[in-house]
Amino acid sequence: MAQTPTRIGLAGLAVMGQNLALNIAEKGFPISVYNRTASKVDETVERAKVEGNLPLFGFHHPEAFVHSIQKPRVIIMLVKAGSPVDQTIQTLSVYLEKGDCIIDGGNEWYENTERREKAVAEKGFLYLGMGVSGGEEGARNGPSLMPGGSFEAYKYIEDILLKVAAQVPDSGPCVTYIGKGGSGNFVKMVHNGIEYGDMQLIAEAYDVLKSVGKLTNEELKNVFEEWNKGELLSFLIEITADIFGIKDDKGDGYLVDKVLDKTGMKGTGKWTVQQAADLSVAAPTIAASLDSRFLSGLKEERVQAAKVFKEGGFGDILTSPPVNKEKLIHDVRQALYASKICSYAQGMNLIRAKSNEKGWDLKLGELARIWKGGCIIRAIFLDRIKKAYDRNPELSNLLVDPEFATEIIERQSAWRRVVCLAINSGISTPGMSTSLAYFDTYRRERLPANLVQSQRDYFGAHTYERTDVPGSFHTEWFKIARQSKI
Amino acid sequence: MAQTPTRIGLAGLAVMGQNLALNIAEKGFPISVYNRTASKVDETVERAKVEGNLPLFGFHHPEAFVHSIQKPRVIIMLVKAGSPVDQTIQTLSVYLEKGDCIIDGGNEWYENTERREKAVAEKGFLYLGMGVSGGEEGARNGPSLMPGGSFEAYKYIEDILLKVAAQVPDSGPCVTYIGKGGSGNFVKMVHNGIEYGDMQLIAEAYDVLKSVGKLTNEELKNVFEEWNKGELLSFLIEITADIFGIKDDKGDGYLVDKVLDKTGMKGTGKWTVQQAADLSVAAPTIAASLDSRFLSGLKEERVQAAKVFKEGGFGDILTSPPVNKEKLIHDVRQALYASKICSYAQGMNLIRAKSNEKGWDLKLGELARIWKGGCIIRAIFLDRIKKAYDRNPELSNLLVDPEFATEIIERQSAWRRVVCLAINSGISTPGMSTSLAYFDTYRRERLPANLVQSQRDYFGAHTYERTDVPGSFHTEWFKIARQSKI
Repeated sequence: MAQTPTRIGLAGLAVMGQNLALNIAEKGFPISVYNRTASKVDETVERAKVEGNLPLFGFHHPEAFVHSIQKPRVIIMLVKAGSPVDQTIQTLSVYLEKGDCIIDGGNEWYENTERREKAVAEKGFLYLGMGVSGGEEGARNGPSLMPGGSFEAYKYIEDILLKVAAQVPDSGPCVTYIGKGGSGNFVKMVHNGIEYGDMQLIAEAYDVLKSVGKLTNEELKNVFEEWNKGELLSFLIEITADIFGIKDDKGDGYLVDKVLDKTGMKGTGKWTVQQAADLSVAAPTIAASLDSRFLSGLKEERVQAAKVFKEGGFGDILTSPPVNKEKLIHDVRQALYASKICSYAQGMNLIRAKSNEKGWDLKLGELARIWKGGCIIRAIFLDRIKKAYDRNPELSNLLVDPEFATEIIERQSAWRRVVCLAINSGISTPGMSTSLAYFDTYRRERLPANLVQSQRDYFGAHTYERTDVPGSFHTEWFKIARQSKI
Repeated sequence: MAQTPTRIGLAGLAVMGQNLALNIAEKGFPISVYNRTASKVDETVERAKVEGNLPLFGFHHPEAFVHSIQKPRVIIMLVKAGSPVDQTIQTLSVYLEKGDCIIDGGNEWYENTERREKAVAEKGFLYLGMGVSGGEEGARNGPSLMPGGSFEAYKYIEDILLKVAAQVPDSGPCVTYIGKGGSGNFVKMVHNGIEYGDMQLIAEAYDVLKSVGKLTNEELKNVFEEWNKGELLSFLIEITADIFGIKDDKGDGYLVDKVLDKTGMKGTGKWTVQQAADLSVAAPTIAASLDSRFLSGLKEERVQAAKVFKEGGFGDILTSPPVNKEKLIHDVRQALYASKICSYAQGMNLIRAKSNEKGWDLKLGELARIWKGGCIIRAIFLDRIKKAYDRNPELSNLLVDPEFATEIIERQSAWRRVVCLAINSGISTPGMSTSLAYFDTYRRERLPANLVQSQRDYFGAHTYERTDVPGSFHTEWFKIARQSKI
């Protein structure tokens, strides 16, 4: 039991909750913890002892838990998104008082946070929806934190968050007040969408190098280690190198080759794609990574389809001329980096569109800054994005930032070579090819959309604009065409 | 005024409503019509006279309108989706009696139909949500009709729908009872998504032929007319040929070249993409067409981006070797057809996924049949789809139907050539390239998803399956990698 009230409370002691609680305690903030299943409480208290007698105090009952915290109380919930959050709020609310603050640290749908913020405000409580990225390890040693909602609540715990968050040299702690309402959850959602994109692009690089370049796992490990020293330096490239080095403990060879090619997913990638459609923002790289996960799940159908087409005379990998490994590795590196720029451009524009819709006034450069450490997409690349928005906060698209534009121009030939090589080899690189299509569409002054709009006016009288005269026009295409046929 | 009660009523006399009412009258079913703005009623009555003294009776007041219809009454609404539908139901409900039936013929979100079906059932009314495709011309002379909801209501007006719908030789009228609840609206929504895909693929074919092949509008017209005699025969190919032949009446040259390259859209394409994400169905071709519309809308940004990259030294169209026009036309035709198969496979699988979720028991072959005439996507191609599902109603994907598989195998080299040519010319073919990626992903037994799942297990302990042993596994990747580094 705490002698004096603790500074903060945390409810929900699954992996993320336990680790975040220990992190907070380690930074010198006495913390009360609670979980519905009591064994999790004892487990966390035990870890606090073992990991350095940290000031962490466990409670088996919500009342004692709430009363142990200094007023105004702050309680972080780390429970499953959806109704468990509502249930936890209900449980705690009974004992809370006006001015107390509830923080949801889960991957919650932003509208749920906005609904709850309003609901608890009626009882006089403050509310934050805080995205937490970095997985188990990040939660324990320094995550990236994306708190949105009540600014008053944020200020009250800012000192804790600044110490608990990942610390990046020359850039500060990976936390900032995101904005009002559900903005913290929304930004975390897009972060996850971008993470989907990064993982898909890396998987495609792997596929091309392995399936076309015939690189061994050892060679792949070396390639990713090398890449992790340059412009691609990032957590995901680093762990990919690690993965290629791990031997199978159940048999011969490497573990990665024994892992089934079926990818699971949770809700955030799907939400990102749906929000992009809602906001009229093209996010094809993120969508391609979601679709790839869907198709990966159809393993049995794919096995059947492979049979059908093999019987039809063409195999898994189409014959392709032997490639120069060094040149291929160089090209794939360029393609990966250029595609990544497109993916981040899409994510950032999605955030901006939502910010405009909701009046959140989000600062894109600041978001890039707090993603530099702690989170899954942490990368040296994010510093470049931050600087692009520092140069021009109104930048319409990362692609036209002078530095990124130069980088893309330098890489575009290699990028096209990789996508065409993959196509001719019969392997798909949906993320890279859709990124390239995004780039070639965005940089194009005149698209064939004039034909689509003509068709729409032809069959639906939807009208069209002209390139030379302002106004809205309709043509009786059918009548004119019929007349000319007579 | 009608001497005896009319057979049916129609409320909402904008373009679609007027034409559908005249169509019903022309088929010999006396019809009452009503519109809130009275002038539309008079206009429709006048048209009924002019177009052959059709049995159509106009009403300026809802009470007289409702009372003029024989019991049990059937009223089709053709008003804007959303709250206008609710308002119209409210207006009419006052005068309706138990057993009467309301039909919504608009592009409504299927859940709204399900909500309304329940709501009016409390008053004893039956309800149908009926997709109507074919635009103005289809409504007047024979649309494709997709009625879903109360089977009792459907049977009561089946005789009317069978005559009003488009008639296809050897295949019957383009209408069938779709299924329960909002299934009629859902199927129409996916129809529209497929329509987006078709239009985008045609626009890309146009772009490649014009920008790379340097075909003139006259040549394009001839190409599309030729294509319209074969496997691509369809309404959209036909009108595209028409479009290329129409001269600008405001200046020199052809009208299509003066149409601004900005494409409008309504809600159904967006809904299709969002539903695909919801149902874990990959629909990248449809998504690419939606994204292309979004990007077409950013005209000013594109003009700026084109400048940035031109200054950086590379132009709109990258230098490409001269092409053989005949061969290019042949290849583009193959690419268009193969991509189209992928797009329809996505749409059909989306419908099946929803049907399974909702227990609608939809018949995919029957849907293909009713799309053979009347609607915007009508095409000879749909007969092939119908036959594929006749052969195997459980077909997991159109791609693996023996006939379609053979057609794709015959076309895949040309398809790859076109996409690579476009990529190397710097023009984007997002629909064709994403279709190709869909095909190459679906037919692949082993995808690089093993790496993505390894990453997920590395940072998030999400576990993985193995190729050789059943079960769910977790590996301490980080610890093992760290040990091996020591």
